[in-house]
Amino acid sequence: MSASSREIEEGLALTPRFDANGLITAVATDAATGEVLMVAHMNADALAKTIESGEAWYYSRSRKALWKKGESSGHVQRVVELRVDCDQDAVWLRVEQHGAGACHTGRRSCFYRMIPLGQKGTARLVMESERAFDPAAVYASAKKP
Amino acid sequence: MSASSREIEEGLALTPRFDANGLITAVATDAATGEVLMVAHMNADALAKTIESGEAWYYSRSRKALWKKGESSGHVQRVVELRVDCDQDAVWLRVEQHGAGACHTGRRSCFYRMIPLGQKGTARLVMESERAFDPAAVYASAKKP
Repeated sequence: MSASSREIEEGLALTPRFDANGLITAVATDAATGEVLMVAHMNADALAKTIESGEAWYYSRSRKALWKKGESSGHVQRVVELRVDCDQDAVWLRVEQHGAGACHTGRRSCFYRMIPLGQKGTARLVMESERAFDPAAVYASAKKP
Repeated sequence: MSASSREIEEGLALTPRFDANGLITAVATDAATGEVLMVAHMNADALAKTIESGEAWYYSRSRKALWKKGESSGHVQRVVELRVDCDQDAVWLRVEQHGAGACHTGRRSCFYRMIPLGQKGTARLVMESERAFDPAAVYASAKKP
């Protein structure tokens, strides 16, 4: 192991390894249930704001913008614990999810479809969760002054 | 929402959105505890093999190779449940982790360091988990015939 990999893996300095687009992967789980709520990305600003505020900030690749979770929907995430992985290219947020859900489709979690195992070829999904809120209503009311 | 995003988000066909390198993100959690064990990547082959076999396969970006979890260490992951997220660029594996751990550094989880909240500027980490196995011994014995 090179000196720098040892420092990245065993050291106590946060030295995130951002990818070519300046991003690391962020996984948010429900602090109470362990359910994975969402997988998103953070740039350096989003990570710094999350650490400083204790609320989840991400970077939207589609909108190319820093984004506070819940800024439109009110569904903010309070971070209970934040961890970094061995090679410092991913963080894990254990969060309290405020509001009805984390997913923009209206579900509590983005992972609402199961992939049955043992299939060969084209896989068919199974819907596991119904909507917890109506995204059209939530995002429309959020836009009102 | 375009017809194709509706199909990706609400449909029951698995149509993974691989990135420019042909990869999606894969998050493995302990099926019993909800702990995030690791974040890795899958290409189309790794995903197909995982679905078909019910054991976790990944794609190593550093080694540029398909990789069965535990093929060197014996620490295989039996998949209890597999899910896909709203935009189909990430999967969540709930696994039974065989052997002492998922992380190549010898820990049960790759997320063995906590980032304390409320810090400004350079963040210092806190080591949360000691090694569960000696990686040098495990990987050396795995190489024996």
